[in-house]
Amino acid sequence: MVRILGIDPGLRFTGWGIIDACDNRLTYVASGVLSTNSDHFVPQRLCVLASGLEKLIGLYQPEEVAVEETYVNRNGSATLKLGYARGVALLVPAQKYINVNEYGAKTVKRAVVGTGAATKDQVSVMIQRLLPGAKIPRADAADALAIAICHAHHRISQIRVNKGTIMA
Amino acid sequence: MVRILGIDPGLRFTGWGIIDACDNRLTYVASGVLSTNSDHFVPQRLCVLASGLEKLIGLYQPEEVAVEETYVNRNGSATLKLGYARGVALLVPAQKYINVNEYGAKTVKRAVVGTGAATKDQVSVMIQRLLPGAKIPRADAADALAIAICHAHHRISQIRVNKGTIMA
Repeated sequence: MVRILGIDPGLRFTGWGIIDACDNRLTYVASGVLSTNSDHFVPQRLCVLASGLEKLIGLYQPEEVAVEETYVNRNGSATLKLGYARGVALLVPAQKYINVNEYGAKTVKRAVVGTGAATKDQVSVMIQRLLPGAKIPRADAADALAIAICHAHHRISQIRVNKGTIMA
Repeated sequence: MVRILGIDPGLRFTGWGIIDACDNRLTYVASGVLSTNSDHFVPQRLCVLASGLEKLIGLYQPEEVAVEETYVNRNGSATLKLGYARGVALLVPAQKYINVNEYGAKTVKRAVVGTGAATKDQVSVMIQRLLPGAKIPRADAADALAIAICHAHHRISQIRVNKGTIMA
């Protein structure tokens, strides 16, 4: 069994979701959203995000982390802010020597709904079906759980490929 | 007197420069470049950057930090990577309760050379003149010292404006 933390980073809202994966069986553990006050200075907001992630890691002790590859849009300023949040989401688990994996948005949707063009609603519905009892306070939390599920699937494929060299 | 750390963030090279400012008198303390290996994974590179900044802050005990506002170019992927490095540069001093200030590239050049359109070479020459003995291993270090100088100037203007309410 492995405990996976999925993170959907954003400066205003960072979704997080934790699942336990035992072969193909997935169990919901917890999920939520870390939010920062847009009236505060960016360095303070990044501190809130970093300390929130540190607390989650301390509390739930995930063994692997998966982070969504942020959508790169044409607005340079928005991309930069997304970069700050994503930088913190990649840094904090790595500082605790936890393996961090990255997946593109389409790969995540394909793993959960079967198509890379799935809507946010379709992702939420499938999360409820795959992880009964999952709490979804915002779509960001559903996305974070989807990222964790995506990593659980890719992990198993990887272990099958490496069978004989890596123990599951 | 106040000790200022200037940071010119980048994922590959992050320039840093430390000066002591006493009214209009500036003294060079130290400068250099933190570099990360582009063959390594991004989370590991961000750890190198964060721990480098933590060590600098522990060693030199700056009281204020100034960070250059990253140039937002049209390449979304490059902007995102710059965002990671800048996020770490804003986060680490804030985690240590150090005041972090941000200045645009043009404001920095204007403070050091007198024009926002100054070249990198002009900035380097002026740094050598303003801070005799400054070590400039790469242009990033000169830029970081320029950011520190810019903050020293703005700080004094701010204190003059607030005269009577804030002690210099």
